[in-house]
Amino acid sequence: MQTIVIALGGNALQEAKGPATAEAQLAVVKKTCALIAPLARDNRVLVVHGNGPQVGRIVLQNEHATPITPAMPFDVCGAMSQGLIGYHLQQGLSEALQDAGIGKTAVTVLTQVVVDANDPGFQNPTKPIGPFYTQEEAEQIAGEKGYTVREDAGRGWRRVVASPDPVRIVELSAIRALSDAGFVPVCVGGGGIPVVEAPDGTLAGTAAVIDKDLAAERLAEDVNADTLLILTAVERISTCYGRPDQQDLARMSVQQAEQYIREGHFAPGSMLPKVQAALRFVKSGPGRRAIVTSLEKAAEALQGRAGTELTA
Amino acid sequence: MQTIVIALGGNALQEAKGPATAEAQLAVVKKTCALIAPLARDNRVLVVHGNGPQVGRIVLQNEHATPITPAMPFDVCGAMSQGLIGYHLQQGLSEALQDAGIGKTAVTVLTQVVVDANDPGFQNPTKPIGPFYTQEEAEQIAGEKGYTVREDAGRGWRRVVASPDPVRIVELSAIRALSDAGFVPVCVGGGGIPVVEAPDGTLAGTAAVIDKDLAAERLAEDVNADTLLILTAVERISTCYGRPDQQDLARMSVQQAEQYIREGHFAPGSMLPKVQAALRFVKSGPGRRAIVTSLEKAAEALQGRAGTELTA
Repeated sequence: MQTIVIALGGNALQEAKGPATAEAQLAVVKKTCALIAPLARDNRVLVVHGNGPQVGRIVLQNEHATPITPAMPFDVCGAMSQGLIGYHLQQGLSEALQDAGIGKTAVTVLTQVVVDANDPGFQNPTKPIGPFYTQEEAEQIAGEKGYTVREDAGRGWRRVVASPDPVRIVELSAIRALSDAGFVPVCVGGGGIPVVEAPDGTLAGTAAVIDKDLAAERLAEDVNADTLLILTAVERISTCYGRPDQQDLARMSVQQAEQYIREGHFAPGSMLPKVQAALRFVKSGPGRRAIVTSLEKAAEALQGRAGTELTA
Repeated sequence: MQTIVIALGGNALQEAKGPATAEAQLAVVKKTCALIAPLARDNRVLVVHGNGPQVGRIVLQNEHATPITPAMPFDVCGAMSQGLIGYHLQQGLSEALQDAGIGKTAVTVLTQVVVDANDPGFQNPTKPIGPFYTQEEAEQIAGEKGYTVREDAGRGWRRVVASPDPVRIVELSAIRALSDAGFVPVCVGGGGIPVVEAPDGTLAGTAAVIDKDLAAERLAEDVNADTLLILTAVERISTCYGRPDQQDLARMSVQQAEQYIREGHFAPGSMLPKVQAALRFVKSGPGRRAIVTSLEKAAEALQGRAGTELTA
């Protein structure tokens, strides 16, 4: 029996196009669950998911409704997104596990993740969140609320927040207890609710986006996983992606991965953090492997017949 | 060591007046946690909370923002409220447990609760949720979305949903596993996310409000609790509440409680469901006791020096 941490990307939770209704999201989640539930038959599985579009919509709803009720800060919006997504995932996974005749159920653990207040990310926030503003509006909001704002690729101005490294999963022992007891934990959603820790151990929410692949990697190390399985929209990692000389990789060594990163083969905010998370996990201990592949190829990839495997 | 299920009322989560900012809510939650954490020193404690005002605001935000993003249905809003409140509670409780030198931590389990699609509550929905409408708007929305709408005490028209009985806590085994492992579970928030179960075991969310005291009672039976501790804004249950002949009760027998209910001493939607939950628990097995009291008197009430204890 292997221990596998599965990181679900955005495509596992909603269609790229079409209205983001609950019904549409649940339909995608159920398809996802039918694909990953069978992996729990002979393995101990833990599921981490992204939350970008979902928390984005929650922020929009909160900002839009400020005339009638106060907007929740970004950490609380993250907690709400864990509720939204976790509910659908635990319902869908438990159903798919039952359909597959696997006597396990899924359960969502709300998860806080400690980040370092001195993380360099906080000096240079890069992650755009929430609504678009005109420059004038943006500067006014920045002045009023202390937000950092940036022009976003010609589309308008937005708030940007830090993307700090995940340091510690606060609810790790509970996640471990559930996993040990045979449950499939859905946890560290959206990379976790970002909190900073005071010297006395007190936690306080902060506005930040923790990369969910790096957070899944943190979890994989902490539960001593054998495999970190990062599921995304493509079957394999490629060099020269989208060019005539694109090459899809079945395997990649640590040395190759580091070289490809230096050569700029992987897009920041897209494949790069996945490769970085995979790299970090493989380097964290002997015998650890990381696989990047598509939802559909997950089962085959675990058997070495699909996906890109990163090896030491 | 006793097992105690604590049901937190609205006053444990926010002030009755003042803006419902995250900061204000967290401040109230931290006070609450400082009061209840000490109960976990010598007892196994599980925490259930209400969500009325919080889910109400989430529904308002969702409805208000429909021009820009689809509104989530009521079950999903409930899941989001479990995220919001559970995050604050697990952070506040773990901090208060640490402050009290108790080596336990709190963790939130997203919880679905099965209700019976044939529950009589669905024939006669009574629980108002979401925004107020004019009669014309209400009737249009009712026609479009199949909502039931009602005039609400002269304040306008609102959607009403059922308040069915809690039948089964879906994540019970996970809650039990965490409790057995020494955690303080925060669970069955807002009475649980209401779901109906198809004959094949498939669950589907439904628009309903499960009374959180009755859901806490369900949990108390399921974890074989010794005590159901219902915390609210008053120290004791009273007969003739608010009248010159008001009498505060230190104890109440099952027979007395049933008589007082018949005589109409307890307000529906307020003290009545608490007394009904207490009654149901005490009648469910020998040696089980239920206490209704205030947050501040919780510790004294457990020692029989405050609150109203319902005995067989």
